[in-house]
Amino acid sequence: MPDRIRDHAGHGATTVAARRRRLRADRARQLADLLRHQILTGGFPDGTVPHETILGTDYRASRNTVRQALDLLRTEGLVDRLPGVGTVVVARKYPHGLDRLMGLAETLREHGRVTNEVRTMAPAPAPAPVAERLQVPPGADVLCIERLRSLGGLPLSLDLTYIPLDIGTRLLGADLENTDVFRLLEAVTGRSLGHAEITLEAVNADAHSAAVLQAPRGAALLMLERLTHLVDGRPVDLEFIRFRGDRITMSGLLRRSL
Amino acid sequence: MPDRIRDHAGHGATTVAARRRRLRADRARQLADLLRHQILTGGFPDGTVPHETILGTDYRASRNTVRQALDLLRTEGLVDRLPGVGTVVVARKYPHGLDRLMGLAETLREHGRVTNEVRTMAPAPAPAPVAERLQVPPGADVLCIERLRSLGGLPLSLDLTYIPLDIGTRLLGADLENTDVFRLLEAVTGRSLGHAEITLEAVNADAHSAAVLQAPRGAALLMLERLTHLVDGRPVDLEFIRFRGDRITMSGLLRRSL
Repeated sequence: MPDRIRDHAGHGATTVAARRRRLRADRARQLADLLRHQILTGGFPDGTVPHETILGTDYRASRNTVRQALDLLRTEGLVDRLPGVGTVVVARKYPHGLDRLMGLAETLREHGRVTNEVRTMAPAPAPAPVAERLQVPPGADVLCIERLRSLGGLPLSLDLTYIPLDIGTRLLGADLENTDVFRLLEAVTGRSLGHAEITLEAVNADAHSAAVLQAPRGAALLMLERLTHLVDGRPVDLEFIRFRGDRITMSGLLRRSL
Repeated sequence: MPDRIRDHAGHGATTVAARRRRLRADRARQLADLLRHQILTGGFPDGTVPHETILGTDYRASRNTVRQALDLLRTEGLVDRLPGVGTVVVARKYPHGLDRLMGLAETLREHGRVTNEVRTMAPAPAPAPVAERLQVPPGADVLCIERLRSLGGLPLSLDLTYIPLDIGTRLLGADLENTDVFRLLEAVTGRSLGHAEITLEAVNADAHSAAVLQAPRGAALLMLERLTHLVDGRPVDLEFIRFRGDRITMSGLLRRSL
């Protein structure tokens, strides 16, 4: 039955080819992950990624794997290839701490100045889930603030903030363009912030958010939802923050036993 | 100068229209964020999102805003519209704790059984950055494990793990398909895990990772890099984990003072 034999041989060849492709793709991704870590932690201090041949030797990878790995990082927007120069680091991701409750300007202080474009700032009736979480009567006004936050002139995040109105009104004249809401909340209440419940997700940017953040449509965003309480437990700040995935990382330390 | 006046008037009209569009888009995103929270926290227990009219009343939003918000959630793959039924919740995101160092099966125990497809498991020479972080000599073999992890039969994450070979060899006969690496590490070393340094990022899935995870190309992934140490401080497990953004959230509690 030559047909069946041919079929079988053909199928076998396809499987071997598919397995090889898969192995190559796996290796490229694995190498890209290692290079990503180097990029994020400043492992290439002059901003230039070593030549493909050197990477091949250092990482025991074939030239094809090195190229595929660099292609992955280029698609992510972390590196670019410049004729006559080689592969250069083009994106910088800033580390946001996960160990302590801090505002953006506080946590990124050493990396530059955070500026805020206040897009909206007005009282509005709290939708039921907002009212419940901020412990205000349903339909009571809360202060809504929407800010586009930038570092070094480039958008970092789009933040929507809900604050109970008794505290919020005291923020109306404040310098929100240059000051973290956290710092202002502590100033106007005369109390420290205590803790926050946070939830992190990765989402694709919708067209409008992408445009505001100057990112491609569908760009991966790190989305942070955070309900912050004063030290006495009162919830005072509900935020929905969309970070550009190519500009921020969140780092922290976890322990096995609490 | 009628031309200039016309230009100016035209520009003014455009600006007003653009501002209206922007406001509508802002409101839709704000509503989508509130509905997302309800979806993620089981706020619609029967899996059906209330009718547009009810949402409009509850959230004081226009019908257009409600529709746009539901469209955003549909594009994200969280809800779908079923003829004759309405809008139903189709995606479920599982909460992964950020407060304690736990394996996936441990943290998701109440949500179902985590199964692992072991794609690769073999010793390989450690690239320099891996050797350095695992504190083994450069070029020494480490155990590489790549697993596709699923919950309820659907892919959750693609995990690449590097383990020093003296510990790794003891994992070679273990039941990796049904057991967390964390649990196995504690079993074979007879010691507890201590702490881990973690970094979280949002990245777009490359074509190959997307295919493996059965997600659309470019889908937002929550990427976790984690270096785990035994309780005596020895680093024993370097992992690169790509979670499907539509299937996982990370939740924790941050404090203002440490």
